[in-house]
Amino acid sequence: MTLILALDFGGTKLAAALVNSGAREWLRYERRLSPAHANASTDLDIMRDLIDSLLQREKPDAIGVSFGGPVDASTGTVRLSHHVAGWENIPLKDLLEDEFSVPVTVDNDANVAALGEYRFGAGEGNHSLFYITISTGVGGGWILNGQPWRGVGGMAGEIGHMVVDPAGPVCLCGKQGCVERLASGPYMARNVREFLEDEPQRRRGEILRGLVGNDLDLITGKMVSDAAAQGDELAQDVLFKGAWALGVGIGNVANLINPQLFILGGSVIKAGDNWWDVVRKVSRETALPEVDFAIVPAALGDDAPLWGAVALAESGL
Amino acid sequence: MTLILALDFGGTKLAAALVNSGAREWLRYERRLSPAHANASTDLDIMRDLIDSLLQREKPDAIGVSFGGPVDASTGTVRLSHHVAGWENIPLKDLLEDEFSVPVTVDNDANVAALGEYRFGAGEGNHSLFYITISTGVGGGWILNGQPWRGVGGMAGEIGHMVVDPAGPVCLCGKQGCVERLASGPYMARNVREFLEDEPQRRRGEILRGLVGNDLDLITGKMVSDAAAQGDELAQDVLFKGAWALGVGIGNVANLINPQLFILGGSVIKAGDNWWDVVRKVSRETALPEVDFAIVPAALGDDAPLWGAVALAESGL
Repeated sequence: MTLILALDFGGTKLAAALVNSGAREWLRYERRLSPAHANASTDLDIMRDLIDSLLQREKPDAIGVSFGGPVDASTGTVRLSHHVAGWENIPLKDLLEDEFSVPVTVDNDANVAALGEYRFGAGEGNHSLFYITISTGVGGGWILNGQPWRGVGGMAGEIGHMVVDPAGPVCLCGKQGCVERLASGPYMARNVREFLEDEPQRRRGEILRGLVGNDLDLITGKMVSDAAAQGDELAQDVLFKGAWALGVGIGNVANLINPQLFILGGSVIKAGDNWWDVVRKVSRETALPEVDFAIVPAALGDDAPLWGAVALAESGL
Repeated sequence: MTLILALDFGGTKLAAALVNSGAREWLRYERRLSPAHANASTDLDIMRDLIDSLLQREKPDAIGVSFGGPVDASTGTVRLSHHVAGWENIPLKDLLEDEFSVPVTVDNDANVAALGEYRFGAGEGNHSLFYITISTGVGGGWILNGQPWRGVGGMAGEIGHMVVDPAGPVCLCGKQGCVERLASGPYMARNVREFLEDEPQRRRGEILRGLVGNDLDLITGKMVSDAAAQGDELAQDVLFKGAWALGVGIGNVANLINPQLFILGGSVIKAGDNWWDVVRKVSRETALPEVDFAIVPAALGDDAPLWGAVALAESGL
C-alpha cells in the first residue's frame, strides 16, 4: 500500500489530506484558514500541525504540493505568493524532503488543479484539456497528451491576461481589457460599483443597491450574480460582459491549441445558466467552425488542487 | 544512404526536391507554378512530372509532403484546398504509397514549415516554438517538446483567427478584428483601398495613389509596405495596425503556452524595421513581465515546407 500526502497552500486557506494510492476517498482530511497577517513561516507552521494530525506517526511514501502562486516546478521552488508575504524563493520541495525524507513534487495551483480534474474529475479520459479557474483571478492549467504543459519558463496557462477588448478598462497588469479584468468576481463587482458611483440618481442597479443597503463597498462578485438572477439589468450587463470576455478567450484558445475539453472551476461558475450559455455561445462563435470542443464544469470543487497533488506525488514515485 | 523525396503542394506553386538524409543541400530541386484553373488532378500530374525529372529512375526511401490546406495528418488525407478545386477528401498518402511503394507522411504547410524551421532553420535548438506565416493569410504551426502539436482535431495553430479587436472590421470568417483581417497582405491592401475610396479628395495616401496610377484595385500588401517606407502616412497607419494586431496575438500566445521562440515567415515580414519594431514592442507589452520569448525571422524562406517535408519523411521511416 502506497500512502500519499497531499498539501494545498491556497492564498487564504491551508489543506492537507492523506490517501492510499489508487483510492478515490481521503483516509483523513484537515483544513484551516490562513490567519490575518499570515506569512510563509506561519503558513508552514500551520501546515506542519495539519500534517502531524493527519499522519499520526505513519510515514507517507510521497508528498504532492499545490501552491497558490508561481512555482518553478522543475526545482520545486516557490517564486512568490501574491497573497502571503515571505514566500519569495522558498525551496519548498527541498524543505519538505529534508523534513520527511520522501520524494516531494510541487507545482502551482492552476497546473495542479488541471491535473486533479484530468485524473480524478471532469477531465477523465480527455488527454488534452485546459482547466480555467474564474474566481478572485482568472488562471489556467494545461494537460496536453496526458501530461501537464507548463511552458518553457513555467508560465503557460495565463488566459487571465489575454487581451480581448483593447478598448476595455485598465487591468492591474497595465493592459486594457484582459479576460480577468472583465470576468473575475472582484472586477465584476468593481465594474458595477464604479457605474453606480458615477450614476447616483439610481436609474439602474436598484436590486444591487438593495442587497448592500446602498453601501457600494460591500458589493461582491457573488452579489452581481445574485442581482442578475433577480433581474437587475446593470448586474446582468456586467455579468454578460464577463462571460463574453471568457468566451472570446476560450474560442481563441481553441483555435490555437485545439484541445478536446475546457473545464471551468472557481466561484464565478456558480453565476447561473445565463452565464454558462453566453460563455458557450461566444466561444463557439469565436472558434472556427472546424474546431470542436466541449466546456464542462469542474467536478472536484475546492478539492481539485489536493487531488492533483495526489497525481503529482504519484508521478514523482 | 537514405534518399528522401520532399513535395510541396502550395496554393499557387508546386515544388519537389531530393536530398540524402542528414544533408543540408538538395541533390536536385524542381519548381513550377500551378496553372490558372488548376485542379487536384492537374496539380498531381505536374507533381508527377517534377518527381520523374528529379528521380531519374532512382527510388526514394521515404516521401514527405507539405500540403497548402487542411490535412488529416493521422491518415494523410487532404480535407480540401482553399485555392485549388477538387482536393476534397483526397487520400494523398495512400495514393503516393500505392504509386511509389515507400512510406509517405503528409501534413499541412504551417505545421510542416514549423518543423522545417525547427530542424533546419531559425528554430534549431529551441524545442518549443510557434511558427507564424504572415502572407495572403495568417497561419501557424506548433513545435512543443520537439514534436509537432497538431491539436486533437488537427486544427491547432490558427492564430490568424484570434480576435484582437472586437470592434474591428469583419473578416471572411464572420468575426470582427481577427489577426488575419488586420495583418495579412491582401487585407492591409483592402484597408487602404477602402479608405481611399471613401476619401477621394486625396488628403491622405498620395504616395500609394502614385504607385498605382490611381487604379486602386492594383494596390497590394507589398505596395502598402513600400508606400509606408516612402513616408505615406495612410500606409504607415495600416501597416502599424497590422503589426499591432500580430503583436497582441503573439503576446496572448506567449501568456498561454510560454514557448521559447516565435518564428515569423511569409511575405509581410519584409515590410521593414518599423513593422518588426511594432510587432516586438506590442507583443512584449501584451505578455506578462515574467513571460520570456524571442521573435526571429524564418531562415528557410519558401523552402521551409520542403525542408519540413524532409523531417516528416524521416520521422516516418
